[in-house]
Amino acid sequence: MARIVMKFGGTSVADLDRIRRVADLVAAEAKAGNEVAVVVSAMSGETNRLVAFVDALDADRVDGANDKRGGAIEDEYDTIVSSGEQVTSGLLAIALRRRGIPARSWLGWQLSLKTDKAHSKARIASIDDSEIGQSLRGGSVAVAAGFQGITDDRRISTLGRGGSDTSAVALAVALKADRCDIYTDVDGIYTTDPRIVPEARRLNRIAFEEMLELASLGAKVLQVRSVELAMNNNLPVRVLTSFAEDGVDNPGTLVCHEDETMEERVVSGVAYSRDEAQITILRLADKPGMVAKVCKVMSDANIIVDMIVQSISKSDSSANLTFTVGKRDLEKAVKALELAQSDMGFEGIVSDSNVTKVSIVGIGMRSHTGVAQTMFEALAERNINVEVIATSEIKISVLINAEYTELAVRALHSAFELEVS
Amino acid sequence: MARIVMKFGGTSVADLDRIRRVADLVAAEAKAGNEVAVVVSAMSGETNRLVAFVDALDADRVDGANDKRGGAIEDEYDTIVSSGEQVTSGLLAIALRRRGIPARSWLGWQLSLKTDKAHSKARIASIDDSEIGQSLRGGSVAVAAGFQGITDDRRISTLGRGGSDTSAVALAVALKADRCDIYTDVDGIYTTDPRIVPEARRLNRIAFEEMLELASLGAKVLQVRSVELAMNNNLPVRVLTSFAEDGVDNPGTLVCHEDETMEERVVSGVAYSRDEAQITILRLADKPGMVAKVCKVMSDANIIVDMIVQSISKSDSSANLTFTVGKRDLEKAVKALELAQSDMGFEGIVSDSNVTKVSIVGIGMRSHTGVAQTMFEALAERNINVEVIATSEIKISVLINAEYTELAVRALHSAFELEVS
Repeated sequence: MARIVMKFGGTSVADLDRIRRVADLVAAEAKAGNEVAVVVSAMSGETNRLVAFVDALDADRVDGANDKRGGAIEDEYDTIVSSGEQVTSGLLAIALRRRGIPARSWLGWQLSLKTDKAHSKARIASIDDSEIGQSLRGGSVAVAAGFQGITDDRRISTLGRGGSDTSAVALAVALKADRCDIYTDVDGIYTTDPRIVPEARRLNRIAFEEMLELASLGAKVLQVRSVELAMNNNLPVRVLTSFAEDGVDNPGTLVCHEDETMEERVVSGVAYSRDEAQITILRLADKPGMVAKVCKVMSDANIIVDMIVQSISKSDSSANLTFTVGKRDLEKAVKALELAQSDMGFEGIVSDSNVTKVSIVGIGMRSHTGVAQTMFEALAERNINVEVIATSEIKISVLINAEYTELAVRALHSAFELEVS
Repeated sequence: MARIVMKFGGTSVADLDRIRRVADLVAAEAKAGNEVAVVVSAMSGETNRLVAFVDALDADRVDGANDKRGGAIEDEYDTIVSSGEQVTSGLLAIALRRRGIPARSWLGWQLSLKTDKAHSKARIASIDDSEIGQSLRGGSVAVAAGFQGITDDRRISTLGRGGSDTSAVALAVALKADRCDIYTDVDGIYTTDPRIVPEARRLNRIAFEEMLELASLGAKVLQVRSVELAMNNNLPVRVLTSFAEDGVDNPGTLVCHEDETMEERVVSGVAYSRDEAQITILRLADKPGMVAKVCKVMSDANIIVDMIVQSISKSDSSANLTFTVGKRDLEKAVKALELAQSDMGFEGIVSDSNVTKVSIVGIGMRSHTGVAQTMFEALAERNINVEVIATSEIKISVLINAEYTELAVRALHSAFELEVS
């Protein structure tokens, strides 16, 4: 007997028939004698429907109303949007009971799933496992509404889009589960996006650190925070599909500690992200603290700076500073810099949103040389110009012109022989 | 400054535009310096949509599943259906903030609105007014999700359809509100159904006892329990429309203590209910305890018996017993009686669901004679046969053939001159 957390995303509970299918999968684990906690997302389309209501009313600006006095609306956004998961959790509990399996729904406040007060992008602080643990031991399947928690002042909070992955891992950690199975609409983690490289291969295992880099770099299967949480608690997470036919093998990909990955490989995957924009500050005075100053301007504007590179001019004491931000933050970033221009003293700003970040990731890079050389040779052979480079112990990222995205991904996938198992 | 509870039903918050209209009405009361708590229903159609989900999954009976083990589903029904009011409360809070009015939503569990465990038809036990009271005093409009509460074991419960009226009155009582305004799609309580009698007149005031009888007798404007609660706590309730044009007088009907009704009248209204079925038990042994026995059979089957009349035969020691039950309970009632037939010893059962209960209600009947005479003469003049009669201090009800419903209502409305103000 094991204690398992199973998580089902929006497409897995898209409609009543999908919920029935999920109930069958959960019932099978329960009938096998396991203690099962389930985390569910909202039925697909439901969150968008609710967000549209919120956006429509939020857009109202009534004459004479003092906007400040009325205040922000994220707390109410969370109250409204969290109802989607609430409905799914109740429906799945009913579907399970109708399959002879005792089950009940658990909402964020019933789990005392505490978060900070950052409404609509809250972080989990703690889960009280006493009541749900007792219910599991009593043989009842726990169906938790994902994505939601409560603040210290008992308001509903949500974890932000994709937060149900984090809910599932946090619940698994709190319940000391043996594993956490994340059911989704793909059958595992691939060496790269199969829409670009048809030869992309499902990985049987992947290390937490690799998954973390891949998730950060744009592979959208698992939410970054859920991987961090699993890694920090050494909780094995399995990614598999809820769409497998009965009787068809569905091993998925196990995300686990690197000692357990076993597969001998240097590079595990190629990721890409089109959500990038490049900003170059021209002829910034080359004196101590100027980069910090740029970072402060961005941070004050609540913008995350990613890749950053400085090229120093030898002829005078100035430098060009190039960095990337999320595409949606570009306009805001340029405005903030322009406001700071006279204070900081630089010549101008050049920006480009037609860029893609392509990355290779692999635990094996720690102990293998020549990886960077292989990467840059492969790109050079295709005449792909690299704008910015960023590296970590287990990844190399390059910023390239967006038009070369597919070409670069295919070149790198092939150069590291990722199609060969 | 007053403390007011305003309640808006499903048609009043049917869509975003209706919610905006409600926000305007609430904002006006808040801007006038009042402390305002609002109780909202689900957007119309929403509850039905959620109930359809529940019904579809509840109908599943999977092979081999032990139905008993999985259990009943009312607790999950409540978790699912209560989300409708949750959404409306958040949306109205947003609409208010956008009108410059500080506001926040309050869910059943946040109000600690405790109920018994009768899921889907729970009764309110208590409301904790400390937190919401503080919020009101701080100048924030409280937008409570109607219809919902929590049980002692922290599961969501609902009060049954129409329960939002009761939520509103209970909240008004807990908050010691000066009055409770129930906004609906009609502009008050009428002397009878205007679809049957176009001359029906809106009452300016009506006594709690009269409203209670009218609500019990089929007038669907206010839920019976909400009137009981208001009467027991002497809380004035105003019924008015949320559909009035700006600047149009909208006095509604004040439901209050009889001393305050002031209007001089004997009969206040004519009500009717088609939800009736008549059962006659033929030749029941006329010995002590037999009527109690019939009532016990019905009560064991969870069926409410309404009108009841016994006709004793002089020739032998037997009697016919006629009584009414809700139309939807008829089949169940007849089955329960048939099972008890050999034990009780009666000759047979005759039933009829083609009947209507028509009633006149008026506080003035206590001190006026001749009311019954006027009623029966009016019916006799139209050749309407009366099957069963039931009376209380302030009402007379008759059971008649359903075909005569409109004729009877019109005859009584005219006989008591209710069209004259």
